Amino acid sequence: MEDVKDVYISPLPDSPYVKPFRLNYTQNGKKKNWDLLEVHDSVAIIVFNVTRRRMIFVKQFRPAIYFNSIQPDDRHKPIDTEKYPASLGIALEMCAGIIDKKLSIEEIAKEEVLEECGYDVRLEDLHKITSYRSGVGVQGSLQTFFYCEVTDDMKTEQGGGVDDEIIEVVEMTIPQIEQMINSPGPICSPPSCLFALMWFLHYKADKYRK
Amino acid sequence: MEDVKDVYISPLPDSPYVKPFRLNYTQNGKKKNWDLLEVHDSVAIIVFNVTRRRMIFVKQFRPAIYFNSIQPDDRHKPIDTEKYPASLGIALEMCAGIIDKKLSIEEIAKEEVLEECGYDVRLEDLHKITSYRSGVGVQGSLQTFFYCEVTDDMKTEQGGGVDDEIIEVVEMTIPQIEQMINSPGPICSPPSCLFALMWFLHYKADKYRK
Repeated sequence: MEDVKDVYISPLPDSPYVKPFRLNYTQNGKKKNWDLLEVHDSVAIIVFNVTRRRMIFVKQFRPAIYFNSIQPDDRHKPIDTEKYPASLGIALEMCAGIIDKKLSIEEIAKEEVLEECGYDVRLEDLHKITSYRSGVGVQGSLQTFFYCEVTDDMKTEQGGGVDDEIIEVVEMTIPQIEQMINSPGPICSPPSCLFALMWFLHYKADKYRK
Repeated sequence: MEDVKDVYISPLPDSPYVKPFRLNYTQNGKKKNWDLLEVHDSVAIIVFNVTRRRMIFVKQFRPAIYFNSIQPDDRHKPIDTEKYPASLGIALEMCAGIIDKKLSIEEIAKEEVLEECGYDVRLEDLHKITSYRSGVGVQGSLQTFFYCEVTDDMKTEQGGGVDDEIIEVVEMTIPQIEQMINSPGPICSPPSCLFALMWFLHYKADKYRK
């Protein structure tokens, strides 16, 4: 995963992934505008293995995090991967996926848990907790958050994603999660993952402490 | 705040706010690329008023959330604001701001608490909790999260932002926060706010329950 080289930026072509545009509006009689992106809604799933009392995460190289770890003066030339190793961009995340198929959000969540983490869960194992907006600046898509308990015997595949995805499945104990949350950072995770972990620590973890 | 009309989208001009580009790289010998944005790092502050035991939030109209609340078929024509009222885009957030000045992050956090919430806090009132990546997809900037307790006598200004900002200061009790977090959603807040609230509920709230 950490074998990353020949890194450089180039202008955005007509991209299927990032489609920026301007939203114009008049608020309280004043003309305003805001630049933003159209982004798919998504699901995110906390997967907790109750057999071994471990949280299941996925780890992958995230170009946006890697790029933002580079000093601004060094960003606009070929990136020195000795000075900036790929590990800077490897994020610890919840299992998640975008809603881009005509399936229910539970079915999409079930697919992601199998593809990314390797656990074959039933739809009724997925408990919807809540949903929220993924950001307030340039992307305001809806993310629905599920909690899912799994056991060792549900692990039918290796996980790690499909196609070109290079995803590593990682497990953490409850004390390891608490240690991460209480570290000064930078934590290489997004706030949705930290919200999910705090939700778990507050509402679920006591049941699984030894 | 909710008087919003004449809403329509247009192509992105050369924008000072949204600068998309492509990051090219070779991972495990395979050429890849990822489209992303350059975004400022930021600070976010939980402000808790210990005099009245209330959390201080800011509310504002967020175009990216509003746009994503609109059915896809209705997005690419002038928006019907009867069908889609502005309230869909009004987000409840922590006090926050981008790091775009040559000040320490504590000084920027202090400025934001005064401008947005109206509380004049000292630098030593700002307790850094941790920092994390604001997203994993198109923006991976660093957000540093502070906890700040305030008292009524620190409220020296009205708050509500500067210049064109239309920001409302909102207060919630601890039971109101718990009710929001435990609602099925959609919660019109970003995950950073929900992380901060769960952190507060787990590590701080007990001290302030009656």
